[in-house]
Amino acid sequence: MNLTEVTMVRVYLTEGDHQLRKLLDFLHRDEQVSGVTAFRGIAGFGRSGKAHESTLLDISMDLPLVVEFFDLPEKVDRVLQDLNQWVEPGHVVSWPARMNMGE
Amino acid sequence: MNLTEVTMVRVYLTEGDHQLRKLLDFLHRDEQVSGVTAFRGIAGFGRSGKAHESTLLDISMDLPLVVEFFDLPEKVDRVLQDLNQWVEPGHVVSWPARMNMGE
Amino acid sequence: MNLTEVTMVRVYLTEGDHQLRKLLDFLHRDEQVSGVTAFRGIAGFGRSGKAHESTLLDISMDLPLVVEFFDLPEKVDRVLQDLNQWVEPGHVVSWPARMNMGE
Repeated sequence: MNLTEVTMVRVYLTEGDHQLRKLLDFLHRDEQVSGVTAFRGIAGFGRSGKAHESTLLDISMDLPLVVEFFDLPEKVDRVLQDLNQWVEPGHVVSWPARMNMGE
Repeated sequence: MNLTEVTMVRVYLTEGDHQLRKLLDFLHRDEQVSGVTAFRGIAGFGRSGKAHESTLLDISMDLPLVVEFFDLPEKVDRVLQDLNQWVEPGHVVSWPARMNMGE
Repeated sequence: MNLTEVTMVRVYLTEGDHQLRKLLDFLHRDEQVSGVTAFRGIAGFGRSGKAHESTLLDISMDLPLVVEFFDLPEKVDRVLQDLNQWVEPGHVVSWPARMNMGE
């Protein structure tokens, strides 16, 4: 099995930040990261302690968003440096992983 | 780049457990964990082998829920000890990661 | 606290692949993996650079799907070998983690 070392990253936003589109464009166009997925959470709270939550009656609240991507470690390091300039501290988590490149 | 060691945790529940609210309150109020996000899956199965799945006709099934959080390793260790008392064994996974603290 | 080493895996598909059912059946029936969850993303793009995105007016697009599972490292290695035969290279990421087995 052919494995490649990668770095996994998860960036934590909320819908109220209005940064999802900007972040996806940055990763896609500017950094050409391979493999990016955005998820919407159903509840959450951040460092502020402010809760973000969805109910049946109120689906337009400030829900959590997570943007996940992975790429070669050197490339991710560079991307994280750039991200630092506009994503809040404490909202980006990364760890080493292996990508399965086939037989 | 200023990085801090953290521990990432994912706790696996299902909607039928009715534990999401209790778990979020525990992490938020009791443990004051910074950074918690809950996600709803679209399908899944656990150790029981019982499948949990959503279809267009049946959106109220026992879908999987995941609660993800991260914090300093010592703090997470303490939280995991406490969680042990009411979350089923085998439903909590954790790993080391780095949190990006800005420049 | 009783911890067991596991390997976490995330497999990246899109709805247009029509592979979710096959992958879940494979993991459940053939490999009897314990603990599998599938998530639908709200946006994403892969190695092709093609964007996958959901809007209110178009909820039937080719959205990203992620299937996450964890099990003992030897078992996951075997599953990954088998997965290699039909999941595209670069779409499977794994890393070591610890599963909390209770007190």
